Amino acid sequence: VTTIYDVAREAGVSIGTVSYVINKTKRVRKETAQRVEEAMRRLNYQPHAAAKALALGKTNLITLVYPVNIYEFQMVIDTVTMAIGYALSDTDYRFSVLALLREATALEELEASVNARAMDGVILMHTQLHDQRVDLLKQVGLPFVVIGRCAENEGLHYVDTDIDAAAHLCIQHLVELGYHSIAFVGHEKRQADTTSVIYRLLHAFRHSLAEFDLPIDERFFIGASDPMHMVEELTELLRSKDHPTAIAASNEASVICAFKAASHLGLRIPQDLAVMGFAESPLYPLLPIPCSACFNHVRELGTLAAKMLVTILEGQEPENPQILLPPRLIARASTIGQA
Amino acid sequence: VTTIYDVAREAGVSIGTVSYVINKTKRVRKETAQRVEEAMRRLNYQPHAAAKALALGKTNLITLVYPVNIYEFQMVIDTVTMAIGYALSDTDYRFSVLALLREATALEELEASVNARAMDGVILMHTQLHDQRVDLLKQVGLPFVVIGRCAENEGLHYVDTDIDAAAHLCIQHLVELGYHSIAFVGHEKRQADTTSVIYRLLHAFRHSLAEFDLPIDERFFIGASDPMHMVEELTELLRSKDHPTAIAASNEASVICAFKAASHLGLRIPQDLAVMGFAESPLYPLLPIPCSACFNHVRELGTLAAKMLVTILEGQEPENPQILLPPRLIARASTIGQA
Repeated sequence: VTTIYDVAREAGVSIGTVSYVINKTKRVRKETAQRVEEAMRRLNYQPHAAAKALALGKTNLITLVYPVNIYEFQMVIDTVTMAIGYALSDTDYRFSVLALLREATALEELEASVNARAMDGVILMHTQLHDQRVDLLKQVGLPFVVIGRCAENEGLHYVDTDIDAAAHLCIQHLVELGYHSIAFVGHEKRQADTTSVIYRLLHAFRHSLAEFDLPIDERFFIGASDPMHMVEELTELLRSKDHPTAIAASNEASVICAFKAASHLGLRIPQDLAVMGFAESPLYPLLPIPCSACFNHVRELGTLAAKMLVTILEGQEPENPQILLPPRLIARASTIGQA
Repeated sequence: VTTIYDVAREAGVSIGTVSYVINKTKRVRKETAQRVEEAMRRLNYQPHAAAKALALGKTNLITLVYPVNIYEFQMVIDTVTMAIGYALSDTDYRFSVLALLREATALEELEASVNARAMDGVILMHTQLHDQRVDLLKQVGLPFVVIGRCAENEGLHYVDTDIDAAAHLCIQHLVELGYHSIAFVGHEKRQADTTSVIYRLLHAFRHSLAEFDLPIDERFFIGASDPMHMVEELTELLRSKDHPTAIAASNEASVICAFKAASHLGLRIPQDLAVMGFAESPLYPLLPIPCSACFNHVRELGTLAAKMLVTILEGQEPENPQILLPPRLIARASTIGQA
């Protein structure tokens, strides 16, 4: 796909100049305009909406917004980021990430970028159930798409995992394999009531346990922000009387910690302890005992969000403005054993 | 630390308004100005250089620039990003990442952001030996700091690992433990002649092998972009006659692949195969056999680069404009065995 950046390189001008030539909004020297037109012809470039908007003071920038403190040890976030990047690389947009730095004043940080008209559209990630950033973007009318959901989603454009179905699939898989004592590992406790994905995961997990007539043991909900502490807490739990025989781990760090605690105690995976992740990670097939997962559509979350936002920026309403992706079991040795 | 975002929240105004009050550059309603001044007093806010510059059309934004296609499976990049974020959260700057999407026209993408005056300063990462982005930033006079180096570094502000010393330390550690047949794993072949860190690593590794009078076997340099192919290539190499007994792995994916290949072949780590990483990763202590590393200053690379750039943006010359951080051995079970 040819983009405005290819035309700029071919003609030896800035993308602003290309846009002026397309839109005839500003006088450009005749020879320069000819060079741009020839470059467009040679490269068979079809101006996108973004190229047209550029001359009207737009930025050609789409910005992913989320708090910087969730970066570490979450390869799924990098997968989302790359997927958005690949989707946008076929368009005239550029891509930036606004990493919100200050938890208490995250809203003011986003507002500063909004006021500076720093981007044409926003993809929001790691949403709160009641998210002030969503309120701000609605209020100023800046186009945005959420990866995730809020408590109230009326009129919201979003792409999310069907978390209820994913939790159900996870418990069902473990129950069918004979595991009836299942722990949930990996949420940060202070986020359990406020952060959409963690709230929903915990809720869906409890609901699914009840559906399968399994008891709910509060000791079996382990959350810690620091992997080393998580290993300690898990080791203690696994050493206790009536310990769990299976672990549903919400993210990569939790899976690694579960493996580590099992190794400490000489527990065999999956004979003594089954381990199951939620979102597939590039790490899981590479682990010594490859790890099962509930869904494999992390890349799709990013791709669909990027495409939905571009559609909105082109002035169209997306066909499906609220997408819930269904889970799909990826069964590996950490639950089903070696083939 | 109180920032301009705290003052804005406390006074219920935008950071632009706070800046106007500080600089008296624009008329602000008397009651609003009083509210801002009271908020500054209450929070004991000392205006930073950034707050002063804001009223002069600055953006208060510092941007990390690197290609999006190096994201996946590189937790060290997230560590750098988080470190920059934490360093900047004490200042009046915000932080964004410009993920360059299009390899062929990366320069035009950066140029578009530069022309839009989208940021006050840039941190460049994953530099090429001859990097057009460096030339562009020099030419337009936009302040920038490099994490890494180029071939020519005259006048450049940078923070990098002392890669020569790191490679030496790695080989020395392995040789002292009796490993004399060492493979290097993890570079992408097509980047070996162009990308600074990969070129330097390969060069330093060969040089260190020679220093210890070890033979250089071209079969022992394994590079692949896809982890699954890397596992295959490594398995084949480890199965061959005269196979290596130790692996120096340039990144996390390579370490995981080495563990996987060893497990395929029933090789014990470190008795049959020692594995050593370069940059410490949050993953390494959590692996079933914790992995050794050559240095633990990834976070520091980000922190120092951010602080150096803020110094420059404040109009001062940094005390040490070219920083090479020395390696420090982190010896774990993957080389020295269980304690």
